[in-house]
Amino acid sequence: MKKSLGAETIVVPTPVWIVCSYDVDGKANGMAVAWGGVCCSQPPCVTVSLRKATYSYGSIISRKAYTVNILPDSRLAEADYFGIASGRERDKFADTGLTAVKSTLVDAPYIEEAAMVLECRLAHTFDIGLHTMFVGEIIDAKAETSVLDERGRVDIKKVRPAIYTPKQRSYHGIGGYLGDAYIIGKPFKK
Amino acid sequence: MKKSLGAETIVVPTPVWIVCSYDVDGKANGMAVAWGGVCCSQPPCVTVSLRKATYSYGSIISRKAYTVNILPDSRLAEADYFGIASGRERDKFADTGLTAVKSTLVDAPYIEEAAMVLECRLAHTFDIGLHTMFVGEIIDAKAETSVLDERGRVDIKKVRPAIYTPKQRSYHGIGGYLGDAYIIGKPFKK
Repeated sequence: MKKSLGAETIVVPTPVWIVCSYDVDGKANGMAVAWGGVCCSQPPCVTVSLRKATYSYGSIISRKAYTVNILPDSRLAEADYFGIASGRERDKFADTGLTAVKSTLVDAPYIEEAAMVLECRLAHTFDIGLHTMFVGEIIDAKAETSVLDERGRVDIKKVRPAIYTPKQRSYHGIGGYLGDAYIIGKPFKK
Repeated sequence: MKKSLGAETIVVPTPVWIVCSYDVDGKANGMAVAWGGVCCSQPPCVTVSLRKATYSYGSIISRKAYTVNILPDSRLAEADYFGIASGRERDKFADTGLTAVKSTLVDAPYIEEAAMVLECRLAHTFDIGLHTMFVGEIIDAKAETSVLDERGRVDIKKVRPAIYTPKQRSYHGIGGYLGDAYIIGKPFKK
């Protein structure tokens, strides 16, 4: 039986992405974002939604760029801190010991310790309500060679991203392999 | 060491959501979508991106509504089929044996067997490129009572959603609990 939970953003999975940008003074900053997802294959684009009140909001507007960083779950406490502190008061890279690297492709830093990084050029800005949705065109996707499979593809079991559950405010890891897409459903094709 | 993978939508996690709608004749249809995410807390909104070529595209445009359905991983083959077949030729509910239920809140069907459902009113349509991004306002979130924790919150370990990895085209399940958000990062706060 289904129970109504109300008009709320209760959905799984949501990601734990660290969205990094430079502020007006060139200080590297980042924030943890669960509101985001891929929105287009060509051009390749990913959304992240931020409240205007965040320090990152102004940075992304002014620099027209950001990176999406996926930390391995061994760095989950650091990722969580990026969702607790504000870049207005703190240097989160200094506080966590993570390393900001200047992207050569967009005007934003990425995290050296990230398993994967998307370097994005701000393509669209949509005010939806409390959150503003930034659509970033992915100029390059980078991954640690250690998280690639034998065919050079990103292997989620090696990336070890965390999954966020809204409301319960919990993090979970990635579980076992369940099957190949576009394959396991074929038996239903009459 | 990071390796460039090019300008591609290679990112994790992405969801396995079945986006359901009625076509012009009132036939219930659905399609598997990995390109989507939450985009605003107030009003609560979720994006799903579809190619114009899909059968669902016209249905959502005409009905101005859709539902997001999260099937448990025991129904992953059915979910995968919803990403293989087209509603233009097939009745995917009949083919899989899943049950379409008419929403009382929006002009769209949802899946009885889904662990969670978001009933959405189409709020915005943004053409990004190959994909069109639909922003749906969540009118209600519903969950099976069996997937709620003792405090009535959605428990991702009970929902058992699948996670999709682009390029590798693989599905994985949810792993172990890793910690509480806004808690485990606190030690970095000086």
